[in-house]
Amino acid sequence: MEHPASIINSITLEVNMVNKLSHVDEKGKALMVDVGHKPHQTRIATAEGYILLSEKTIELIKENKMKKGDVLTVAEIAGIQGAKKTSELIPLCHPLQITSVKLTTQILDNGIKVSSMAKCIGQTGIEMEALTAVNIALLTIYDMCKAVDKSMIIKDIKLTGKQKLDE
Amino acid sequence: MEHPASIINSITLEVNMVNKLSHVDEKGKALMVDVGHKPHQTRIATAEGYILLSEKTIELIKENKMKKGDVLTVAEIAGIQGAKKTSELIPLCHPLQITSVKLTTQILDNGIKVSSMAKCIGQTGIEMEALTAVNIALLTIYDMCKAVDKSMIIKDIKLTGKQKLDE
Amino acid sequence: MEHPASIINSITLEVNMVNKLSHVDEKGKALMVDVGHKPHQTRIATAEGYILLSEKTIELIKENKMKKGDVLTVAEIAGIQGAKKTSELIPLCHPLQITSVKLTTQILDNGIKVSSMAKCIGQTGIEMEALTAVNIALLTIYDMCKAVDKSMIIKDIKLTGKQKLDE
Amino acid sequence: MEHPASIINSITLEVNMVNKLSHVDEKGKALMVDVGHKPHQTRIATAEGYILLSEKTIELIKENKMKKGDVLTVAEIAGIQGAKKTSELIPLCHPLQITSVKLTTQILDNGIKVSSMAKCIGQTGIEMEALTAVNIALLTIYDMCKAVDKSMIIKDIKLTGKQKLDE
Amino acid sequence: MEHPASIINSITLEVNMVNKLSHVDEKGKALMVDVGHKPHQTRIATAEGYILLSEKTIELIKENKMKKGDVLTVAEIAGIQGAKKTSELIPLCHPLQITSVKLTTQILDNGIKVSSMAKCIGQTGIEMEALTAVNIALLTIYDMCKAVDKSMIIKDIKLTGKQKLDE
Amino acid sequence: MEHPASIINSITLEVNMVNKLSHVDEKGKALMVDVGHKPHQTRIATAEGYILLSEKTIELIKENKMKKGDVLTVAEIAGIQGAKKTSELIPLCHPLQITSVKLTTQILDNGIKVSSMAKCIGQTGIEMEALTAVNIALLTIYDMCKAVDKSMIIKDIKLTGKQKLDE
Repeated sequence: MEHPASIINSITLEVNMVNKLSHVDEKGKALMVDVGHKPHQTRIATAEGYILLSEKTIELIKENKMKKGDVLTVAEIAGIQGAKKTSELIPLCHPLQITSVKLTTQILDNGIKVSSMAKCIGQTGIEMEALTAVNIALLTIYDMCKAVDKSMIIKDIKLTGKQKLDE
Repeated sequence: MEHPASIINSITLEVNMVNKLSHVDEKGKALMVDVGHKPHQTRIATAEGYILLSEKTIELIKENKMKKGDVLTVAEIAGIQGAKKTSELIPLCHPLQITSVKLTTQILDNGIKVSSMAKCIGQTGIEMEALTAVNIALLTIYDMCKAVDKSMIIKDIKLTGKQKLDE
Repeated sequence: MEHPASIINSITLEVNMVNKLSHVDEKGKALMVDVGHKPHQTRIATAEGYILLSEKTIELIKENKMKKGDVLTVAEIAGIQGAKKTSELIPLCHPLQITSVKLTTQILDNGIKVSSMAKCIGQTGIEMEALTAVNIALLTIYDMCKAVDKSMIIKDIKLTGKQKLDE
Repeated sequence: MEHPASIINSITLEVNMVNKLSHVDEKGKALMVDVGHKPHQTRIATAEGYILLSEKTIELIKENKMKKGDVLTVAEIAGIQGAKKTSELIPLCHPLQITSVKLTTQILDNGIKVSSMAKCIGQTGIEMEALTAVNIALLTIYDMCKAVDKSMIIKDIKLTGKQKLDE
Repeated sequence: MEHPASIINSITLEVNMVNKLSHVDEKGKALMVDVGHKPHQTRIATAEGYILLSEKTIELIKENKMKKGDVLTVAEIAGIQGAKKTSELIPLCHPLQITSVKLTTQILDNGIKVSSMAKCIGQTGIEMEALTAVNIALLTIYDMCKAVDKSMIIKDIKLTGKQKLDE
Repeated sequence: MEHPASIINSITLEVNMVNKLSHVDEKGKALMVDVGHKPHQTRIATAEGYILLSEKTIELIKENKMKKGDVLTVAEIAGIQGAKKTSELIPLCHPLQITSVKLTTQILDNGIKVSSMAKCIGQTGIEMEALTAVNIALLTIYDMCKAVDKSMIIKDIKLTGKQKLDE
């Protein structure tokens, strides 16, 4: 088993290092970034996205909401649970101690806007959790409306804010 | 996409905030509770519950235990693993750094009692982990006995203690 | 590695066999039950359970429901997702192709009743999915009410029906 | 426990029923749709979506690809794994026996296009799996590029095809 | 978004196709293998593996077993649960309807042998489930013995049999 | 329910206690080890393992790598994701805040060597994460090569290093 290797390959997940495209040196070996001295800070990220719906679908959601709030409530719950699964879904995302996730849905004239806020105390940011929450909430709306609307489009998912606060 | 929204809905998961029924203000917007200055404390919760079994089933479990301990051991293992999945199962439960879970099963005259203890160091309590451990252990006993006992009832699952200790 | 073993231990998960306490022969070897010729049938199971709440908590849930339906809707969603996780939570439960899960919550004078119905087409029953749905929904109610109610008890979780129908 | 209920609430997950907004009758009770006689058919769905990137980021991905193919390969793997998690992520999505998922990424002048194809044999469609695959792949690209690109937008995620074939 | 792509990349998960190294054509596009006409057959796979332990550790396990059977029982349970998670752990492994998993542990003079049997009815084999069961059971033994044994080695994990039977 | 118990059984998951075979006292009651005063330290573990392959398989992997790097990249990604799932797979393993995982694959004359490094800041070690990463990466290689190689063996998985550093 001691024969010289002809090919060496390497992938690293690392706090504050997962974000770099250039996360390996020329020989394919990952550099070990030490984050041991980085301060634990409160980190907040906000994100948003849209799903375009037909007028008829929007009417159905409004009626449903008046009665039981199901479509929007189910989407928000799914978004919160999705945020908690981020590090399981995104291969190079590391686990975070999430302290807060907030999902807000808003019915517009031509669709629904989903906004999220995610917060943790740690050594690296929480953008992916905020974005994953929005994505999963939008997919959940798609799932519940797909029997009545064949032209839905999910669009313009982006980060809208990012903050670091000392504890 | 900038049209005024007619309906806004919102759900928040938040440390020390998930427990309030009144977790949204009148307009449906969640309040952002800052827990950044709350102390990290050792938190312990204990819970218990029962499953009522027929005499015949209890005899079979006792015999099995004498030989291999399977039914009770499998239930305890399932309970510990269930505790670790709490934040995945309960939508508004946030992830905790569990440091200890203990499951104890006790054969009674008319069934089995399952007791749990869960412990973490953090800014919020660990009751749901202790209760989930008991629930999953009881369901596991149900599963393994359901071929021989058609009258099982799971009952009286409750929190039996809760403690906060400074680190 | 060919030395005689002094101790042999064995556990089996098997369709139509997981239910027996006596699922190993005297030497600890599991018997291989062949289910290849058993018919695929529609299987339905129903279950129910309760959580006892204070009057004040029931009032808060009713008000909340009037406005947004959150507590009961979140509990029902959690129950459906819990049913889909049954084989992951209960060690000797095998995976099923669930075709339907229904959760119903009902506010009583002294608490909430959760009822479930689960359905699949397969070679073995779906009782555990119906029971798990009820358990997770009850735990979710507990979680959302625990800030205002310190005396909740989960009780009387049981199977209420079981059916097999030819396809 | 036998007191009359003042409020009854209900949510159902059901094959071929999850898609309807109007999935409860006026009293909040779900209708039981029998799918037992629906044929098992091969079902295929295709979806696509985009992530807008800066020129610099596109250059970095192209170079990386030449060397190791990491960014696109990691995104495709994440998309396939995401498709397999669909019923866990979308509350009212039921589990399917996926037989095939294909993810294709294509570098454009202003970003990356992700296309997916998902296939199963069953009694209900596989659109959500195709859409979830695209979403998770796009989020994975976002994660790996977020250190060098602060203006990424995920957009235009939609179903591009749907087919039913007799076995 | 209609600009010509300079680079196209593609990965496919497919029943009976995941096994080929050469699963893409020269242009990187995956070939669509149609398995719709392949028969559903009972498929069985068996696997085994070893963990080398010190004499002292073997003594401790034997004693523990005499009393409660924990170490071996916990390892077997973990192996069965691991088998059920195979398609979640191995990226290009597709989900199977497992009908049976059996784990057997055997104490040898210099360690423990873990054997597994996994069974399903489907259009593709179940080798990875049998192998994953063995791996997770061996890791679980490692975990429970690591405080007393610093020289454990996991070795010789391999498939020992594979069968296809008509239903 | 107050009748004296004839049999009491108990299992505990505890930081710094999961590793002991002798983790229960003579009466089956677990001892509560207090880790509240143990320092939070940076902990690093490294592990390695091999899969033996035929010459033909090694050639195929090398060619594939030259083109797209798939086999090794997919294995490394699977290993990193496996490390993040360790506490879910190993029953008595507690959840850790992983800050880094690195997977390296090396093609040898007779197979592939997989090496891992895992790091966290916490009160207990990270050996199981390093070992799980190696196991899952090796299983993933097995899965992708099993159509062309019928004689693969996974072997010699062991811990190669362990370190504790003050923050």
